Amino acid sequence: MEKIKVAILGATGTVGQRFVQLLGNHVWFEISELVASDRSAGKPYHEAVNWKLDTEIPQKIKNLVVKPTSELKTLNSKIAFSGLDSTVAGEIELECAKLGLAVVSNASNYRMEKDVPLIIPEINSDHLSVLPFQQKKRGFKKGFIVTNSNCAMMFFTLVFGAIQTKFKITKAIVTTMQAISGAGYPGVASMDILGNVIPFIKGEADKVETEPQKILGKVVGNEIVSASFPISASVNRVPVFDGHLATVSFGLEEKTSVAKISTLLKNFVSLPQELKLPTAPNFPVVVREEADRPQPRLDLNVNQGMSAIVGKLQICPVLDFKMTVLGHNTIRGAAGAAILNAELLFKKGLI
Amino acid sequence: MEKIKVAILGATGTVGQRFVQLLGNHVWFEISELVASDRSAGKPYHEAVNWKLDTEIPQKIKNLVVKPTSELKTLNSKIAFSGLDSTVAGEIELECAKLGLAVVSNASNYRMEKDVPLIIPEINSDHLSVLPFQQKKRGFKKGFIVTNSNCAMMFFTLVFGAIQTKFKITKAIVTTMQAISGAGYPGVASMDILGNVIPFIKGEADKVETEPQKILGKVVGNEIVSASFPISASVNRVPVFDGHLATVSFGLEEKTSVAKISTLLKNFVSLPQELKLPTAPNFPVVVREEADRPQPRLDLNVNQGMSAIVGKLQICPVLDFKMTVLGHNTIRGAAGAAILNAELLFKKGLI
Amino acid sequence: MEKIKVAILGATGTVGQRFVQLLGNHVWFEISELVASDRSAGKPYHEAVNWKLDTEIPQKIKNLVVKPTSELKTLNSKIAFSGLDSTVAGEIELECAKLGLAVVSNASNYRMEKDVPLIIPEINSDHLSVLPFQQKKRGFKKGFIVTNSNCAMMFFTLVFGAIQTKFKITKAIVTTMQAISGAGYPGVASMDILGNVIPFIKGEADKVETEPQKILGKVVGNEIVSASFPISASVNRVPVFDGHLATVSFGLEEKTSVAKISTLLKNFVSLPQELKLPTAPNFPVVVREEADRPQPRLDLNVNQGMSAIVGKLQICPVLDFKMTVLGHNTIRGAAGAAILNAELLFKKGLI
Amino acid sequence: MEKIKVAILGATGTVGQRFVQLLGNHVWFEISELVASDRSAGKPYHEAVNWKLDTEIPQKIKNLVVKPTSELKTLNSKIAFSGLDSTVAGEIELECAKLGLAVVSNASNYRMEKDVPLIIPEINSDHLSVLPFQQKKRGFKKGFIVTNSNCAMMFFTLVFGAIQTKFKITKAIVTTMQAISGAGYPGVASMDILGNVIPFIKGEADKVETEPQKILGKVVGNEIVSASFPISASVNRVPVFDGHLATVSFGLEEKTSVAKISTLLKNFVSLPQELKLPTAPNFPVVVREEADRPQPRLDLNVNQGMSAIVGKLQICPVLDFKMTVLGHNTIRGAAGAAILNAELLFKKGLI
Repeated sequence: MEKIKVAILGATGTVGQRFVQLLGNHVWFEISELVASDRSAGKPYHEAVNWKLDTEIPQKIKNLVVKPTSELKTLNSKIAFSGLDSTVAGEIELECAKLGLAVVSNASNYRMEKDVPLIIPEINSDHLSVLPFQQKKRGFKKGFIVTNSNCAMMFFTLVFGAIQTKFKITKAIVTTMQAISGAGYPGVASMDILGNVIPFIKGEADKVETEPQKILGKVVGNEIVSASFPISASVNRVPVFDGHLATVSFGLEEKTSVAKISTLLKNFVSLPQELKLPTAPNFPVVVREEADRPQPRLDLNVNQGMSAIVGKLQICPVLDFKMTVLGHNTIRGAAGAAILNAELLFKKGLI
Repeated sequence: MEKIKVAILGATGTVGQRFVQLLGNHVWFEISELVASDRSAGKPYHEAVNWKLDTEIPQKIKNLVVKPTSELKTLNSKIAFSGLDSTVAGEIELECAKLGLAVVSNASNYRMEKDVPLIIPEINSDHLSVLPFQQKKRGFKKGFIVTNSNCAMMFFTLVFGAIQTKFKITKAIVTTMQAISGAGYPGVASMDILGNVIPFIKGEADKVETEPQKILGKVVGNEIVSASFPISASVNRVPVFDGHLATVSFGLEEKTSVAKISTLLKNFVSLPQELKLPTAPNFPVVVREEADRPQPRLDLNVNQGMSAIVGKLQICPVLDFKMTVLGHNTIRGAAGAAILNAELLFKKGLI
Repeated sequence: MEKIKVAILGATGTVGQRFVQLLGNHVWFEISELVASDRSAGKPYHEAVNWKLDTEIPQKIKNLVVKPTSELKTLNSKIAFSGLDSTVAGEIELECAKLGLAVVSNASNYRMEKDVPLIIPEINSDHLSVLPFQQKKRGFKKGFIVTNSNCAMMFFTLVFGAIQTKFKITKAIVTTMQAISGAGYPGVASMDILGNVIPFIKGEADKVETEPQKILGKVVGNEIVSASFPISASVNRVPVFDGHLATVSFGLEEKTSVAKISTLLKNFVSLPQELKLPTAPNFPVVVREEADRPQPRLDLNVNQGMSAIVGKLQICPVLDFKMTVLGHNTIRGAAGAAILNAELLFKKGLI
Repeated sequence: MEKIKVAILGATGTVGQRFVQLLGNHVWFEISELVASDRSAGKPYHEAVNWKLDTEIPQKIKNLVVKPTSELKTLNSKIAFSGLDSTVAGEIELECAKLGLAVVSNASNYRMEKDVPLIIPEINSDHLSVLPFQQKKRGFKKGFIVTNSNCAMMFFTLVFGAIQTKFKITKAIVTTMQAISGAGYPGVASMDILGNVIPFIKGEADKVETEPQKILGKVVGNEIVSASFPISASVNRVPVFDGHLATVSFGLEEKTSVAKISTLLKNFVSLPQELKLPTAPNFPVVVREEADRPQPRLDLNVNQGMSAIVGKLQICPVLDFKMTVLGHNTIRGAAGAAILNAELLFKKGLI
């Protein structure tokens, strides 16, 4: 099979670098083009990028010359993976979709639009059904925009999705402890976070309180309608490099037990597993029984960073249950999520 | 006025060192005796202790010779401040009380006993009324045991106490992010916490879920009866040196507004302020309005570490309100709390 | 005595904040004017500044309105303390000196000029004798520029100065481990330094290898001539908030012993101590005997951060002796150094 | 080929865990037996160990039952990899060698003995020639003891060995910045190292100043005679998880240039590369040209942690040259080094 050519938008940023790392050897996709700001354009990638990952830049990408965002018309890729900053993603992604590319985006700009699927493939792949209406509405001929969610709520939402195969979530209170890599580079100043916790991330609490409902919502007519249970989020930045941790208390409509939820989560598989998507983890949710897990340092790389790790599942004396959830914010929480979305789109014949 | 002689039990430990630091220049109390394990006994304090604070050992304490716990009978102090580890505190504190000392303890052993006051002086000084019954029941003639609470729940409990002057707390969900100094020395291994979060502290969640109710409870007959609203706690260790942070969602029986609670907290003063106890902060609760506060690094030393710092007070879409609370775990959360308790006891003529 | 009015240039930066903190209650000087970039100008200080210190902004400074650098002519202060970034310090300091102000600068721009004193008051106050020539050469009528040194070499140079009262340094090899606050704010990105060491600080190795020789040099004619012994520096950034540590091996022309050098250092006092300058430490050099000291966390605040802390003084099998030196980089290493310089200038009648 | 059975002594410790991880899939060796203290004995490995690595315990090792050190006689392995603590390694390793095992040890106990090879396979494999004399002297029939060096000096000594293929080192001044994992678990208390640097590691400076000379020494008669150039070491613990960094200034007998040394290092290969030992890196020394490298976070895993990473190679104004060297302290600096030694022994027919 000939590999599908893909472009990476925002290729020099933190998420862009993860795209380069994860797609360096992909079985279906091949990085054909790198797009970044004018400052980087015209340079070979290894000169343009301030590479921050602890693996080498893939050999065949090193000398790929970065294209400017002003030359999107010259792109000959089928998929545009977007790791763009939200300050510029809006226009660029729109232009790419108009040019006929499948835009698979990690940016927040279109996530909450009713005609734009916000996808966790294990949970709401049916939301892709709005794409024809998106194309019609926005005048895209072949292109479209599909998004993945914010890195802080993706993991508990994936768990909620698994739980909702049998039960119904009625409310949730969430406290996040998020890694610095989530803010990109240079991102968080070391003077702010070394030996400290910052109880604030701009715009984040709002995303954590609204994106899960969209993912757990339904397609009604041609639009995605969010679920309506309330979520209360308190977000914190902690001095951890990679790995977002969250404590989550939640209510269920039905009576059940910790053991039943645990079993449900451990056995949960869904479409990406059935389709054997290359980036899909064997099990999207991993349950740990130890009292002191999950921990970012020890559990981050389980299933190559593509699973949500659940621990401390127990009765909550105020709501019904509580748990602690961990996920790799720049893999399943960003670039890896987009890649899994693209794999799903490809396997479903949408690319 | 001649100063009152005090002994420090567990003088070489983390809390013991804070006692030495904070009592080095106290206006009413004078460190007369230091008690520690047999390993330290017989040595001058500066040789016995592995001093971990960033101020010098007070000059007059440096050469005080440490006494062994086997010679409690020789103590001629009126007050015994206990920074003992809970593995040994039970017996030693009991013996001291029997010997006629006022035991003002930071250890957890007797905290939940119905005849032992667990005191936050701004909130439940009336619980001291059980002391005569304690003495009777346990056969103490002059001595007694008074405790202060766990460092993780003290701060939000102080805030709850202030709120309860007008409203009634009905339930609370708490996630703590606790500093390493809370575990004493050597305590948390660096390999466990550097760049990591540990979602577990032995015995801590239970304390956070039960001690607040005792403090917010009432004396009925001769015993302290705990309040009965439910608290759900998730406790975490973070790589912060000093300063416990907690996100707290809580329900109220009454309808009210963020502004009213905020005003209530800002103006809250109580007995320690009225009595002008030397260690009492001007205001026990400090409210910050900025979205990114409180932070351990910036706010820890407000009011010499004796206040609870509240920020992010806002509506909670699930319970009624939420906030983030910070406190200095080894000052107001431990040694400073005990000293304030002792000041209260002295001013009320109980010592 | 009426206090002398002083202005702070770059008042919102990291060093500027330290100036505000340390001068908030100074016995001789009074902050009269705050100068910062146009972005901050016109705002009250507490709104203009992103305050990063763990004490409150001094009450009387909070509402002082920040002046822009375009209105230096309106300054009515006698002294301008400069915490300006070197990218802008050159012109602004020059203009202030022309306007008749005593510019006491922490910026590096003029440090190595032969007519500009680079002063550690304990070591080379005689270098102030070039000021009349500076004024003549540069056309200053009343104003002048005096500088303090880089934060990384100040501490071992102070120690070298003390040693040179009896012996002669012939060479030195230095490895620094420098705190993040030395890079200002936002400065070092957390993704670069959390759990890491960076063996590079732009321009720093050069300063560490040349500034000590100027300080240890002599006035010849009207110019300062640097000493000529070689220094080799390797500079590193470490995840420490405040406090630069350095290992230093050095050769001496004379034979001597560790004990003699230690005694020399412990007893060293100089002009600032004799003149009882308000910010001068009792002893400029503190010697620790313990094998595991000095440490930033434990020793940083000795003598209010105004001393160099020496430990591990011992024979070096390659050069003659070695030691580990610690200092507070934003106090004695920056703002505190400039204040001590200004106190010296005032006491000598030069202001 | 049938795999060779190996035992791991001290299998539950920090180095022992690395042995388990690295030998889990070895092409020549197969973990047959795990030995640990009485506390662990009798338990399946996954219960006995407090596993601290971020990969899973190899599946086939998980349930291997740990043997006590009192039953060494029952071992049926050919090789005993020792990750024992030096407090117990002396006797146990001796007993294993007497029992006929090839003891390949990471412990320091026998390193400096003149009849015990202290081996870096790229540098001094000829030192193995003393083994027959060791056996004779100590009454071993078939067994023997071979050691690898301390983790802090291994990397610059490997570089020195490469340089000595053409030039002669005359002296060196070294400052180390060492990771916490080097102290084992629980090892360094978090209260000591979080946001701090500790200028002391027990016994370490001495090892750094003496082990390199043994490795760079010669076999004379039946004994290894150390080289005699002086090394001066200052050792520091920094808040880094894995990865020891060192600044190294060194003198050479010959005149040469940075470029020539750089080329020499880049092209250096030796016996392990020629023999294609499975764990040998393609190039034992990797040279980085960027001013800000090597860094633990970015460069630690180059060549699976088996190379020394050199950066900042330049003229030293005091000695002749200087550089910064990084290495993975628990891979090439400990377990990986021992495994490479064992591979060499096997390939040379000594096992």
